Amino acid sequence: MAPAVKVYGWAVVSPFVARAVLCLEEAGVEYELVPLSREAGDHRLPDFLARKNPFGQVPVLQEADDDLTLFESRAIARHVLRKHKPELLTGDGSPGSAAMVDVWLEVEAQQHHPLAAAIVMQCIVSPLTGRAVDQAAVDEDVRKLGKVFDVYEARLSASRYLAGDSVSLADLSHFPLMRYFMETEHAALVEERPCVRAWWEELRARPAARRVAELMPPDFGLGKKADQ
Amino acid sequence: MAPAVKVYGWAVVSPFVARAVLCLEEAGVEYELVPLSREAGDHRLPDFLARKNPFGQVPVLQEADDDLTLFESRAIARHVLRKHKPELLTGDGSPGSAAMVDVWLEVEAQQHHPLAAAIVMQCIVSPLTGRAVDQAAVDEDVRKLGKVFDVYEARLSASRYLAGDSVSLADLSHFPLMRYFMETEHAALVEERPCVRAWWEELRARPAARRVAELMPPDFGLGKKADQ
Repeated sequence: MAPAVKVYGWAVVSPFVARAVLCLEEAGVEYELVPLSREAGDHRLPDFLARKNPFGQVPVLQEADDDLTLFESRAIARHVLRKHKPELLTGDGSPGSAAMVDVWLEVEAQQHHPLAAAIVMQCIVSPLTGRAVDQAAVDEDVRKLGKVFDVYEARLSASRYLAGDSVSLADLSHFPLMRYFMETEHAALVEERPCVRAWWEELRARPAARRVAELMPPDFGLGKKADQ
Repeated sequence: MAPAVKVYGWAVVSPFVARAVLCLEEAGVEYELVPLSREAGDHRLPDFLARKNPFGQVPVLQEADDDLTLFESRAIARHVLRKHKPELLTGDGSPGSAAMVDVWLEVEAQQHHPLAAAIVMQCIVSPLTGRAVDQAAVDEDVRKLGKVFDVYEARLSASRYLAGDSVSLADLSHFPLMRYFMETEHAALVEERPCVRAWWEELRARPAARRVAELMPPDFGLGKKADQ
């Protein structure tokens, strides 16, 4: 029987799709990854917009048993963990621990993601697709991300994980984009900060993260296409 | 005795500070709003960075009884409601309802906020501060936000609120920025869509929203300063 959970995403998994898949892997949920074609515009088809995601984006999660369709990767992540591994949302169980998971999840979304995503786009995607790199913009984003990692370094010198002493979605949510960021020439931002470096090494060594990384080739699958 | 909950924010409440305050008002929690001065750089003082928010932003919520300090407005919102009014996080109690609250909260953060914030900055803040308005950028953002509101219109024709048939944080979280957006010349984006309009009218009529609106002068307090 096919798994009751389907994830619609790109065949070469994007960081957003990877966030959903990582949570399913962490929770040990069986799922089917249904590959869409961006080139064919699968995400713009009327049926996709009407029945999967009206904003035309991936990932989309469908659960046959609950007749539930969800989009937005961080919402999918919360749902999967609330249902199958709630301790990754509640941290170490101390008072305020769930609140700290929320705080550092927002830090990922608001402080880390915009800068790391811009650097990955410029340093990995632009060269592969023949677009010009805006070096001044990269330099500015690297400077700002360094300041963000300074805060992480201070935080991670006081607690093993971002939200406290146990791993949580706040840490996991960083993995997909960090996996690509660490392929750029700016990985030193992490390597130079011992606590951030140790946190990242631990994160990437998790069995679930290793399985998800296999779905994320360093060149976003673009190198292969360029060769064809 | 002073309230056990303090919110650090600007004297003229920003949309981010207003999100935290709105949740406290909705939950009926007594709080003290501690005004900081942006001009004086209160948010950059070493003590603020060390003990309130290392990213130098507001709002910050402090709870004396739990010795808890939180930042990031959406994380504060979740915490306040989880503790004092959890039904605003779980929707109508149907299966998947909490997940739909998360989905539409992410829609607010990822789809609505960036466009509405850019339009408010250009159409309200720039003229008051003597900055040039980039009309081409405004036109493009208005076009995109219209498409977002098309999705809202379809959604709100099928359910009374964004996450289902009862109000939730997903709706409330829109209030602070919408309060300013509706002061711009692009309010027609809402007025022209009957279900979005009805949703907005209901949202702004809530007693908590009316109290928060009093802290948010239409000119961000900038007009008064310009007169001085």
